[in-house]
Amino acid sequence: MESIILNLLNLTGEERAAFAVLAPQRFHPDGDGLTVEDWQSAQVILGNPPPECLRGSTALRWLHTRSAGVDPYTAPGVLPSEAALTCSTGAYGHSVSEHLFALLLALMKRLPSYRDQQNRALWRDLGPVKTLLGAQVLVVGTGDLGSSFARLCQTLGARTSGVRRDPAKPAAGIERMYGFEALDTLLPAADVVALTLPQTPGTVRLFDKARLLRMKGDAILLNGGRGSCVDGQALAEVLADGRLWGAGLDVTDPEPLPPEHPLWRQPRALITPHTAGGNHLADTERRIARIALDNLRRYLAGEALRNRVR
Amino acid sequence: MESIILNLLNLTGEERAAFAVLAPQRFHPDGDGLTVEDWQSAQVILGNPPPECLRGSTALRWLHTRSAGVDPYTAPGVLPSEAALTCSTGAYGHSVSEHLFALLLALMKRLPSYRDQQNRALWRDLGPVKTLLGAQVLVVGTGDLGSSFARLCQTLGARTSGVRRDPAKPAAGIERMYGFEALDTLLPAADVVALTLPQTPGTVRLFDKARLLRMKGDAILLNGGRGSCVDGQALAEVLADGRLWGAGLDVTDPEPLPPEHPLWRQPRALITPHTAGGNHLADTERRIARIALDNLRRYLAGEALRNRVR
Repeated sequence: MESIILNLLNLTGEERAAFAVLAPQRFHPDGDGLTVEDWQSAQVILGNPPPECLRGSTALRWLHTRSAGVDPYTAPGVLPSEAALTCSTGAYGHSVSEHLFALLLALMKRLPSYRDQQNRALWRDLGPVKTLLGAQVLVVGTGDLGSSFARLCQTLGARTSGVRRDPAKPAAGIERMYGFEALDTLLPAADVVALTLPQTPGTVRLFDKARLLRMKGDAILLNGGRGSCVDGQALAEVLADGRLWGAGLDVTDPEPLPPEHPLWRQPRALITPHTAGGNHLADTERRIARIALDNLRRYLAGEALRNRVR
Repeated sequence: MESIILNLLNLTGEERAAFAVLAPQRFHPDGDGLTVEDWQSAQVILGNPPPECLRGSTALRWLHTRSAGVDPYTAPGVLPSEAALTCSTGAYGHSVSEHLFALLLALMKRLPSYRDQQNRALWRDLGPVKTLLGAQVLVVGTGDLGSSFARLCQTLGARTSGVRRDPAKPAAGIERMYGFEALDTLLPAADVVALTLPQTPGTVRLFDKARLLRMKGDAILLNGGRGSCVDGQALAEVLADGRLWGAGLDVTDPEPLPPEHPLWRQPRALITPHTAGGNHLADTERRIARIALDNLRRYLAGEALRNRVR
């Protein structure tokens, strides 16, 4: 019997045809128009279904997410225990790393403060700026995003080091790799600390107040992974105390960041609303489609899946 | 008889010693404390004296500016007609190109608008962004600044072309070089147009309304050369009409930009107050000192001067 396949990806006509050639499937971009029964009877889902619609499903064999992060689906009871889970890591490196790079350069050149001055028609020199040339960049989490970001920093003359669970595993763009046990030793030497970590029990609040205070007083913090990796309240306090040159955040905890959160009011923070990845560049969608198509072919052929999380 | 040499550069102790070894000279960083008589009796000046203090001098043989632009000194009557004029082109490429690159990436990722939202504690997705990967970048004026900027764009995957007076002369970072007569043909194809021109009779208002309207409707304009190259009033009108993705301006006409100028109020403009170069990066000062030291050695030895404008 054929599997019921729900395809929730945003596809071009050509991509849709390529999927349809592999197997019959139902195309519902973003899941629009699907009922609880549709979700519960699906054996394969390509895309990001609402986690609450999957609870209790016994049919699901495989979920392939359009996102790189899978934390909404790893909570107990969301997926049947035997279901395979794969993700679209590799699709976002270009988009997210370029966005983080833009945040970093904007902070280095004081562009947020110049923008604030512009809104008051104020022509005033704010003094020295920073450069990537010779800067020491520490990337925490050196998967697709972190590695892509490190390579961008290298092209402008930065030195790069990285922290990952298995330091024996190299990553493009990272000159020196360390394990997490080295983090506290590395922090005081870094001009830029970029977090590109998934959400796991080990990464939640990894950057608490003590770690933020271990950073150089004029360092720049970037977060492009998961907002929960940073204690946002502590970060706001540290900035308010005049420490850190700046913080560029595409992710926060919670999201959306509530209007009363003190981070909004820190002038040396620069906040974007989790828009570094997603569908903000057309080529990200094309990369997601290519990864999913390849994985569906593998699934149907009984081959090992790519980007398997479990 | 020894020349009277005024040295107005901002030097480290080591640099000052290196200058002093070459010849006796008076060190007055930024010209502080000098009288009209001091200015008028100097035969050599290293740095940027107030142009009005030079008028009428018959003593001056050579002026070497700390700036790359020399337009304040080329007006009739400012320098004696036989005086040599050299500049510090080559010192600013790193600083100015990285600043222009930061403006470009900030505009591509809508960071100015996200900053405005941040100031209202607003978490709202503003939609698609742009990438340098595959973008067509046209650099108008391919000296030190333009060439450095083009190389940065190439590292993120952009295609580059350039316009200069002598298109037979190549420049690092520029894939295809054209003469100024090709400008109007090239404009409609460029995703990014970066102006890094000196102020000369031929460059004033080069980007008038007609040229701005020849640009792609969603192109980005950057100006890091001289503000007079762009008709700022016309640019504000074009932006107000919804054309162009954005404009990043480190230079304006006039400077400071008056509070009532409409460019301040264009949300898709991003304005910095001529801070891309200057002394905003320590390494720019060191590069200026190296160029001036080498030129002073040449001057004293009777060799040809570097960066000679006239």
